[in-house]
Amino acid sequence: MGQTIQDIGEQGLLQRLQAFCPSEVIGDDAAVLPTEPGKLLVVTTDVLVDNVHFSQQTTPPVAAGWRAAAANLSDLAAMGATPLGITVGLGLPATTPVAWVEELYQGLVNCLQSTPIVGGDVCRSPVITVSITAFGQVAPTHVIRRSTAQPGDAIVVTGPHGSSRAGLELLLNPHAGDSLADRDRATLIQAHQYPRPRLDVIPQLHLLAPRVNTVAPDKSLHPSPFTLHPSFTGMDSSDGLADAILQICHASQVGAQIDRQQIPIHPALKSWVTPATALDWALYGGEDFELVLCLPPDRAHRLATQLSPDAAIIGTITTDRTIYLIDSTQQHPDQPLTRDRSFQHFS
Amino acid sequence: MGQTIQDIGEQGLLQRLQAFCPSEVIGDDAAVLPTEPGKLLVVTTDVLVDNVHFSQQTTPPVAAGWRAAAANLSDLAAMGATPLGITVGLGLPATTPVAWVEELYQGLVNCLQSTPIVGGDVCRSPVITVSITAFGQVAPTHVIRRSTAQPGDAIVVTGPHGSSRAGLELLLNPHAGDSLADRDRATLIQAHQYPRPRLDVIPQLHLLAPRVNTVAPDKSLHPSPFTLHPSFTGMDSSDGLADAILQICHASQVGAQIDRQQIPIHPALKSWVTPATALDWALYGGEDFELVLCLPPDRAHRLATQLSPDAAIIGTITTDRTIYLIDSTQQHPDQPLTRDRSFQHFS
Repeated sequence: MGQTIQDIGEQGLLQRLQAFCPSEVIGDDAAVLPTEPGKLLVVTTDVLVDNVHFSQQTTPPVAAGWRAAAANLSDLAAMGATPLGITVGLGLPATTPVAWVEELYQGLVNCLQSTPIVGGDVCRSPVITVSITAFGQVAPTHVIRRSTAQPGDAIVVTGPHGSSRAGLELLLNPHAGDSLADRDRATLIQAHQYPRPRLDVIPQLHLLAPRVNTVAPDKSLHPSPFTLHPSFTGMDSSDGLADAILQICHASQVGAQIDRQQIPIHPALKSWVTPATALDWALYGGEDFELVLCLPPDRAHRLATQLSPDAAIIGTITTDRTIYLIDSTQQHPDQPLTRDRSFQHFS
Repeated sequence: MGQTIQDIGEQGLLQRLQAFCPSEVIGDDAAVLPTEPGKLLVVTTDVLVDNVHFSQQTTPPVAAGWRAAAANLSDLAAMGATPLGITVGLGLPATTPVAWVEELYQGLVNCLQSTPIVGGDVCRSPVITVSITAFGQVAPTHVIRRSTAQPGDAIVVTGPHGSSRAGLELLLNPHAGDSLADRDRATLIQAHQYPRPRLDVIPQLHLLAPRVNTVAPDKSLHPSPFTLHPSFTGMDSSDGLADAILQICHASQVGAQIDRQQIPIHPALKSWVTPATALDWALYGGEDFELVLCLPPDRAHRLATQLSPDAAIIGTITTDRTIYLIDSTQQHPDQPLTRDRSFQHFS
């Protein structure tokens, strides 16, 4: 097993981990970073716990690190921000192999690419806990908010959904996917273990003009410094595509019609499970880390074209507050889209 | 015991905790905060684990929250930064009382005063884990760094040392302090449970001009964007006064002479334990969260006067790389100051 934390101590481990950090941020009480003038600071935090958020069976340490970084970078992308850095807080049992922690950090930096790890803390804990805070910056006119969707907006998703849930299924029940080609199996597992945060979408989005949003009377009860500024609308689909649509509609006080035929699902997944299961995983599986954006139709089409073939327009924002899953091919009746999976009973 | 986390669920808990956050930061994937133009971003992170960093015996939840906030705000003060906000990541057993978490948050906001909690995450864990990331901002000319101490600098501490360690002793062994007056006992316990981060020192420090630091040839091997800028020198004493002096001397490649008679120790502590124990707790007890600053003597005297009666000049930075504890009253021989407490064997 090699060395454990108790062999080298917390200070010894911190020294090993500094190899993953830029040298100029080491050695003071806190990291100091330049920011760009006029940009807003964006901050998000996540706590991951062994056997809750990852496990030895489905998540080698390099994947646990990648996924932890991806979740936080995706939150920054969901705000329209470009990353500045992350901090990593670790709670570790004394028996944790040093190699496990180094592989976790390798996974973090693999996903982070040029974004630096600028701070960390390590302490004893009976269970492995990985706590990440990511911060980035965004121009005030380019913030992506959930609360500014408007009736008539087209709803764009930046990529396929359900693949992460499919990859998890293959890791938990390897024989379930015996019918899959090796390459398709690997693609779905990759989607679960190494999801790609869609920071690449942000410069594409910036090619479109943001919209100056009006403030609805009932929203002015909670004035925000941003409601009168231009902004984009959306969030990420880390908690599931259905959750993202429901959250945006709730925050914006609007409804939506989603065409089940337009939700992008990977061909490998379509070939493997029933259409009902594929749709279930696409809507409720979560952790696909795509962006769900609401844009005027012309801009939505431009963005979907820029991001083709993965992106798709899946529906429209409506005035009334109901959210329906419709079927443009008329094979299924309209169904209300709900937070849980009760829609399955109707399909 | 009232409700537990499993009674109200993670979402229910997050809703309760939002009462402690400003409403404008709630409801998107990440918090968005304005910063001042031209300032640098400062980031620090800490992980606290139940029965490692706090316990039911010595730390009620409101004190655990206060201390967690204090440690992070002190790191910001140690960089010369003013706080912008903190994020809080919680790992909690399902049986944790909701009231415990609310009291923890009350302790956080009591210590934070006007600094907002701008983000959080809650998840299941077998052990209570509190992970805090604090961020602030500082003008590039006002960063406090460890590596810029110069021979001839006077070493200022902003307040008494050893009180936190004394308070812990009183909590662990209540009868040990039977000789103490109630008020003195309360003062020392207060120093342990509710230490005051010295953010108030920063504006006082800014009344003094920072120094333009020269770059020593051997330091230029690790060029930093800040070495040619003006800066202040110092850090906080959260890991003990001896540790702070040793860290500053190591980073600055200098030595120091510390006068044991000048180290400020609370009268209640002096009256209670032997001089050797009081000095031990002052140097090695830790968690006093004062600042240790190195300044040209005239500026050091001005700062100590501004911060009187608590602050004191305790010694001088020297050219040779040795660090000595001296005695201006000649009662004790000079002793090398070490990271551990072996100096006690000589006293």
